[in-house]
Amino acid sequence: MAHDHSENIQRLKIIEGHIRGIQRMLENDQYCIDIIRQIQAVGAALNKVSVSLLDGHLNTCLLNAIHSDDPVEQKRVLSEITEVFETSNKIKPSKGASLK
Amino acid sequence: MAHDHSENIQRLKIIEGHIRGIQRMLENDQYCIDIIRQIQAVGAALNKVSVSLLDGHLNTCLLNAIHSDDPVEQKRVLSEITEVFETSNKIKPSKGASLK
Amino acid sequence: MAHDHSENIQRLKIIEGHIRGIQRMLENDQYCIDIIRQIQAVGAALNKVSVSLLDGHLNTCLLNAIHSDDPVEQKRVLSEITEVFETSNKIKPSKGASLK
Amino acid sequence: MAHDHSENIQRLKIIEGHIRGIQRMLENDQYCIDIIRQIQAVGAALNKVSVSLLDGHLNTCLLNAIHSDDPVEQKRVLSEITEVFETSNKIKPSKGASLK
Repeated sequence: MAHDHSENIQRLKIIEGHIRGIQRMLENDQYCIDIIRQIQAVGAALNKVSVSLLDGHLNTCLLNAIHSDDPVEQKRVLSEITEVFETSNKIKPSKGASLK
Repeated sequence: MAHDHSENIQRLKIIEGHIRGIQRMLENDQYCIDIIRQIQAVGAALNKVSVSLLDGHLNTCLLNAIHSDDPVEQKRVLSEITEVFETSNKIKPSKGASLK
Repeated sequence: MAHDHSENIQRLKIIEGHIRGIQRMLENDQYCIDIIRQIQAVGAALNKVSVSLLDGHLNTCLLNAIHSDDPVEQKRVLSEITEVFETSNKIKPSKGASLK
Repeated sequence: MAHDHSENIQRLKIIEGHIRGIQRMLENDQYCIDIIRQIQAVGAALNKVSVSLLDGHLNTCLLNAIHSDDPVEQKRVLSEITEVFETSNKIKPSKGASLK
């Protein structure tokens, strides 16, 4: 199932440039909080790519798998959605705190 | 589509108890970092409920909507998955940092 | 160092009410995505409490520890800030993906 | 206050390489979920850099600002810690869900 990823490829090229920019900020020993802010901005931009990819995936590969009526394939594609959602939700509490 | 939510209802009762526990920690002016740790543990437990609900939803309501062959219904249920994924990914960079 | 936690205690009472509300949504088998949205709203409200607690902690206990000139105490309070920041940042990639 | 950022610069070079790798995955129209997994792994690696920077910042610039006994400077550096913590915690609930 061919996708047009041109927009996301462009986003990643911008992100790549910002990663190099952050390297320079470190080389120039710029203020750490400014660097953390830039990293958080890059994190947000990366998440935009993930969300756009997921949206495209749901409307193509997932639909095809479900229409294929192959229960094994259906189970696989649905469990992957749960997996990436779980990963993005993962707050791993510090050792000291857990809900018994 | 009836779901068996007993496990998640039980999880939420435990979470409710921990929320009251955190209130007591605040009333007793306990150490703030210990309270933040407990809040992060509650956050992780809440996310577990979200992930389990999404997994159930994908394998019931989403499948039914897609098998219904109603394109409007399909679009709606798929866009909701993207929405909750986007919400869980949302890192809103501080005002000072954005990728131009 | 006594803090006035009344505002956060009030926030937690509202959160406690919403947790019971989510239990009822589950008991009534309401639409899963609506329940996930509510859980995400509760997660955001919990984070507001964490942020407010951290801000208070920085301006009281942390300052006192640093002014105490006790290097062991300083190291401890600073490492706790890194720990809760790390926990809130923790995105644990799924098994299949890691940066070698 | 000079920091030795060599380790983080090296991490960012690895991350930069992975960003190019993700671009190639998109150009080759590889499986979207595999690409999302890689993006999540890059997000985790970026967060490691943020956490390490924060730790260094706390133990240098923050300590200096607090020892400077300049209340304006103290307030500024402490509020920055709260800000980056808040950004990393930011779960922006979807429009439909908010705690009234």
